[in-house]
Amino acid sequence: MKTISVLGSTGSIGTNTLKVTSSFPKDFRVVGLTGGNNISLLAKQIEDVRPEIASSADEHTSSEVQSLLRQRGYLMSRTRFVHGMEGHIEVSCHGKTDIVLSAISGAAGLMPTYRALELGKSIALANKETMVVAGELMMRKSREKNVEIVPVDSEHNAIHQCLRGGRRKEVARLILTASGGPFRETPPEKMASVTLDEALNHPTWRMGKKITIDSATLMNKGLEVIEASRLFEVTADEIHVVVHPQSVVHSMVEFIDGSILAQLGLTDMRIAIQYALTYPERWDSTLPSLDIYTLPRLEFLKPDEEKFPCLGLAYRALRAGGTAPAALNAANEVAVEAFLNNRIAYQEIPLIIESVLDAHSPLEAADLDTVLKADNWAREEAKTYCQSSKQAISTR
Amino acid sequence: MKTISVLGSTGSIGTNTLKVTSSFPKDFRVVGLTGGNNISLLAKQIEDVRPEIASSADEHTSSEVQSLLRQRGYLMSRTRFVHGMEGHIEVSCHGKTDIVLSAISGAAGLMPTYRALELGKSIALANKETMVVAGELMMRKSREKNVEIVPVDSEHNAIHQCLRGGRRKEVARLILTASGGPFRETPPEKMASVTLDEALNHPTWRMGKKITIDSATLMNKGLEVIEASRLFEVTADEIHVVVHPQSVVHSMVEFIDGSILAQLGLTDMRIAIQYALTYPERWDSTLPSLDIYTLPRLEFLKPDEEKFPCLGLAYRALRAGGTAPAALNAANEVAVEAFLNNRIAYQEIPLIIESVLDAHSPLEAADLDTVLKADNWAREEAKTYCQSSKQAISTR
Repeated sequence: MKTISVLGSTGSIGTNTLKVTSSFPKDFRVVGLTGGNNISLLAKQIEDVRPEIASSADEHTSSEVQSLLRQRGYLMSRTRFVHGMEGHIEVSCHGKTDIVLSAISGAAGLMPTYRALELGKSIALANKETMVVAGELMMRKSREKNVEIVPVDSEHNAIHQCLRGGRRKEVARLILTASGGPFRETPPEKMASVTLDEALNHPTWRMGKKITIDSATLMNKGLEVIEASRLFEVTADEIHVVVHPQSVVHSMVEFIDGSILAQLGLTDMRIAIQYALTYPERWDSTLPSLDIYTLPRLEFLKPDEEKFPCLGLAYRALRAGGTAPAALNAANEVAVEAFLNNRIAYQEIPLIIESVLDAHSPLEAADLDTVLKADNWAREEAKTYCQSSKQAISTR
Repeated sequence: MKTISVLGSTGSIGTNTLKVTSSFPKDFRVVGLTGGNNISLLAKQIEDVRPEIASSADEHTSSEVQSLLRQRGYLMSRTRFVHGMEGHIEVSCHGKTDIVLSAISGAAGLMPTYRALELGKSIALANKETMVVAGELMMRKSREKNVEIVPVDSEHNAIHQCLRGGRRKEVARLILTASGGPFRETPPEKMASVTLDEALNHPTWRMGKKITIDSATLMNKGLEVIEASRLFEVTADEIHVVVHPQSVVHSMVEFIDGSILAQLGLTDMRIAIQYALTYPERWDSTLPSLDIYTLPRLEFLKPDEEKFPCLGLAYRALRAGGTAPAALNAANEVAVEAFLNNRIAYQEIPLIIESVLDAHSPLEAADLDTVLKADNWAREEAKTYCQSSKQAISTR
């Protein structure tokens, strides 16, 4: 029996995780949940899994969740209700939890994940920002506690699987696949006028809004490059991105002897989630097999770095090192949020991030405090740039 | 320093093996060579690698090789010259040999390989007939001697690599890729009139004549299905064949959790040969990387079993078990030889094999003697069918 706390249970990874755990009722037990503002879904999940502990965004949402559950006759003593960052950390560090599935979106996922790692809990990591912001610290802690961080992101999960085909020193490079997002075939001159709805229309994966925009700008791939560099301890030059619009190959590893191993599968997150929860074992899937005979033709293309400047910005932050990736990620979070609220135009996203990176003097990522300070600084800096956006001014 | 005997050194795998060993002069030493009738190439190879022992087809070729070497001033005492099956076995069993690279084409490769395995030598296996004819015996011996047989065939080598991604009981199925051969797009009604030259024109791999014809009929894939079943101890139902005309993906393994691992690489046999010789390590390749950005579009199609009946015949022999695969292989060798000599038509190849299988009562493959008797019987049977071919009669 494996016991699990799911951080970010009401998001897309979280709900898929609960589908996976519920299909092995004898092997998995969910002991902790954290949700954000989706009160009704969190209440429903608590009813379903009856966790030891549940956390939501704040005191207000917590009491609403509790009143919903009371109305439905839930045995309230079954679950302890907590909230906010402190509550999320209580969930991730709960004594009965073996594995923490970390799927809170954004830098907010860092603290609960890091604290659980300090306690030596296994980490199934879907929150890429944790590795982008504090990857070096996470890896240091993971070595110290002798705990492997198994990635849930389909690309990193694919790489984790492919890496089993050789030793670390035998790896020549990682090849991250990217769907190319909704603007892959948009002519460069039309990029200035793309809309929020167009950016939210991802061709192959159904995900949250933030990550969908990141997929459109290729910043998602950029963050994944940084995450891969941290998780697998390879340099920027050893990570290549290839656009693969069919999203059948989820990523690849090239070894020094010229062999490339690739992982293929359905575009269903449950495969990677289950892998991360059952590793080092593999368990039967309840999903259908990938039908190899009806695959589309698979294409592999070079990404257009001029049309998608965010990818180059991520490589730049990775090469700069230290707190630069944290600054990049924070600036991106602020810019995407502003774009989602129609406060800046699509093409301002990379401009804002670039300005923040230009203004940032990276420090060594010596401790969490240093990276969180860089994160805060970059957020404030990015907000200033957002406020001076033409679009922001025109909608005031 | 790894010491190697190369069985079948003048063939396509053999010459590529010597390219691999010569690129690591400090790590590999070739102590034995066996060649067939290509006297000048064998003499050249002996000059280059200065083996302890060298074997050729018969007494006549052996003395010709020796006289060529004497003319060139080779220090004859360096090498012991032997010949024929006994000679080949002396080479494979030589006391200084750690690894036997077995690349003699056809059932003739069986004895020297089996004898080496009995002595606990590592086997890098390119001779698929060994596993088809005596796979169960080979695997029994390999377990008994605790020696792994690492396949050199690109497909099985790919599967060997992919299998590292999980445990044996976690394997759902093997997916063998096939280029589809030169007749992949030939309309079924034209198959009756295909010529020897057309059959010898393989689209992606440059290989010997026998295997090139086997690739055209898909019998090569059929033999590979049997080989895979033996090597990896899976049933016929757990092996699927997919036509992949670009030959970039060399084969795949699907695990029970829905993940598929695939191995990709250049269509250059040196990658698989080097892997088999260096396993469990991977060494730097002297070949260029596969350029992922300039790959063609990759297609995966269902094989047409009506147009290529040999594939179904191989599955039939595998399911029948015992000596049936040996009979299938022997009948195929005879039929292909007859086709290469213009004594039968292309479409008679599967008819002859089918007739032999129809007439064969499989016995348990209890020992080498039993399988070699089945092999002999099937050869004689197939020869009779070849002689009664219309084409044979018309060319008499």
